[in-house]
Amino acid sequence: MFSSVGIVSAQRAQFDIPLQFKSGAVLPRYEIVYETYGTLNADKSNAILICHALSGHHHVAGTYSEQPKNVGWWDNMVGPGKPIDTDKFFVVGLNNLGGCHGSTGPISINPETGKPFGSSFPVITVEDWVESQARLADFLGIQQFAAVVGGSLGGMQALQWSLAFPDRVRHVLAIASAPRLTAQNIAFNDVARNAILTDPDFHGGDFYAHGVVPTRGLRLARMLGHITYLSDDAMADKFGRELRAEKFNYGFDIEFEIESYLRYQGDKFAAYFDANTYLLMTKALDYFDPAHACEGDLNKAFAAAKANFLVISFTTDWRFSPERSREIVRPLLHNRRNVSYAEITSAHGHDSFLMPDLHYLEVMQSYLNNIHRENTK
Amino acid sequence: MFSSVGIVSAQRAQFDIPLQFKSGAVLPRYEIVYETYGTLNADKSNAILICHALSGHHHVAGTYSEQPKNVGWWDNMVGPGKPIDTDKFFVVGLNNLGGCHGSTGPISINPETGKPFGSSFPVITVEDWVESQARLADFLGIQQFAAVVGGSLGGMQALQWSLAFPDRVRHVLAIASAPRLTAQNIAFNDVARNAILTDPDFHGGDFYAHGVVPTRGLRLARMLGHITYLSDDAMADKFGRELRAEKFNYGFDIEFEIESYLRYQGDKFAAYFDANTYLLMTKALDYFDPAHACEGDLNKAFAAAKANFLVISFTTDWRFSPERSREIVRPLLHNRRNVSYAEITSAHGHDSFLMPDLHYLEVMQSYLNNIHRENTK
Repeated sequence: MFSSVGIVSAQRAQFDIPLQFKSGAVLPRYEIVYETYGTLNADKSNAILICHALSGHHHVAGTYSEQPKNVGWWDNMVGPGKPIDTDKFFVVGLNNLGGCHGSTGPISINPETGKPFGSSFPVITVEDWVESQARLADFLGIQQFAAVVGGSLGGMQALQWSLAFPDRVRHVLAIASAPRLTAQNIAFNDVARNAILTDPDFHGGDFYAHGVVPTRGLRLARMLGHITYLSDDAMADKFGRELRAEKFNYGFDIEFEIESYLRYQGDKFAAYFDANTYLLMTKALDYFDPAHACEGDLNKAFAAAKANFLVISFTTDWRFSPERSREIVRPLLHNRRNVSYAEITSAHGHDSFLMPDLHYLEVMQSYLNNIHRENTK
Repeated sequence: MFSSVGIVSAQRAQFDIPLQFKSGAVLPRYEIVYETYGTLNADKSNAILICHALSGHHHVAGTYSEQPKNVGWWDNMVGPGKPIDTDKFFVVGLNNLGGCHGSTGPISINPETGKPFGSSFPVITVEDWVESQARLADFLGIQQFAAVVGGSLGGMQALQWSLAFPDRVRHVLAIASAPRLTAQNIAFNDVARNAILTDPDFHGGDFYAHGVVPTRGLRLARMLGHITYLSDDAMADKFGRELRAEKFNYGFDIEFEIESYLRYQGDKFAAYFDANTYLLMTKALDYFDPAHACEGDLNKAFAAAKANFLVISFTTDWRFSPERSREIVRPLLHNRRNVSYAEITSAHGHDSFLMPDLHYLEVMQSYLNNIHRENTK
């Protein structure tokens, strides 16, 4: 039976051991907000970690008692009878450090100054996140995850788990991801960042003290992001050249439906998301490159991995195209890892990883059922 | 022999007959700045009009005596012995109305107010441009062009010539163009426009009076534009993940070479281009749709065309992909027009139409030689 995990509540873990970031910066103490669904079994072997992408967070599935419409971002994937089956697995979602959904980030009060971290929050990397996630695993008593799962930037974290903690993860599920960004990927991120950085209301990242928010920049960043999340075809099917009104108004207000959609998405996002978090997330994407220390050789980079892998891509995803997923598969095969690879036909572009496409859900369910069988035999 | 048209000078034509725009707005009088190369023959049958794209202008070939390094934007295509051979053809380049290179536009002084037009300059369409170009042809004594040629937005103007003035153009050369924008194309334009419109220094388009320029918005628009002009592969080859410095600096300054390139291009453009012109050019792109009045049916739209056509696309152009050029070819074939179509293998994305690719130049030269032969037989 497919159903919801129901009403959930966020929890909070406090860490007082300093975390040194890859940049050299140190966070003396921090909090991570997380949710769990399902039950950890006696030998603690059925835990699955869900890593989130750019705008995600710890609320992966279910709803809150006070906010019945606030459904988790991956509720179609996580729940009783769903592919990531909470009747079988103990599922952990968290908000990454630097986020704006409860974990320590730029909007948090820096206890040393009594003011928000703002621009002083260190630039964070995928490696730093995985380090902090491992500490959360320790806190929860999980020595080894049955699987670490993520889409997009979340997939990079899942890959990093196999490299940083090869003995602490049995399966890595990297969906609509890439082993590192291309110049074009970085270019889009840089335009989005520049929109925020040059917004006069950004105040070098310390806008909180000025009682303003760099809404214009954040809005542009999100509008641009949305173009890269959707496929050209999906946009054509959904919006085409449909006009908002009956005829052209020959001005700079909304003329086409696609403009209305983008501006709406931009406004909605800018109303709640933190600009500094946006910057940090895009930087983490840019920096991730496991081959950086091996002269760009991904074969060498993935030699440390011990996990089994499921890699999934979507045909119309041009942000992280299927070819980018094959760049993950090839070095894993080179290193004689067990790799399953599925290229799903889907019209939804990069957003496909969040969509309830039947074939996609079946591939996930089938792979996760095998993990469960292996776990219980 | 391939050589330059040498030293050229811009000329200026004044028009005192009001021009009614498609929007209904009327421009009582206006000036068009233009250049010509080569000699108009006795029967005035060897004229070629070059229509420019978003940031182009009338300075197509040659240099200026006072500015020897200011080479025309299509100097590799236009000149003695070059594909558009000025020994054979009389070539006309102009700056479109609404532009910022000398023709009447938002930065021009409105004689009725004594102030720059700014926000009061009407939204202009491809149809309006072609109307004004026909008046320039009248002024120059050209009843019929041997060819109207343009790349990208310039290609749309060339197509429009065949629809608005089917008896005044014998050949249309539409390069890296499209019969109308897709939702994704419009989306990119809308993000660029919003960057300008929401820049506090834009002042609703009347920033001239405030002594400021919406540099931030224009810079973002150009950075974004550049991503869509280059192919993913070309960016990967040229920049890859090359760092500016020797190692990561974990901050928001330039980290990767691609960021340095984009910001440089953005800064350079923002220093000279007019923000209102940018808005107008992108709107003209959005509005162009010859099938709009025929329920979207391009076959019906192109029924009026009498010209012969050369349509050229480039394999790595994802802004106006080869499929978009085939959308031009199909309705022309449906209407039994003579159409030559070339899909050129080129690594340079949309920018390919400006590049001296040998195969591309040969296709152009061959087609134009045929025009010349037909003209002189």
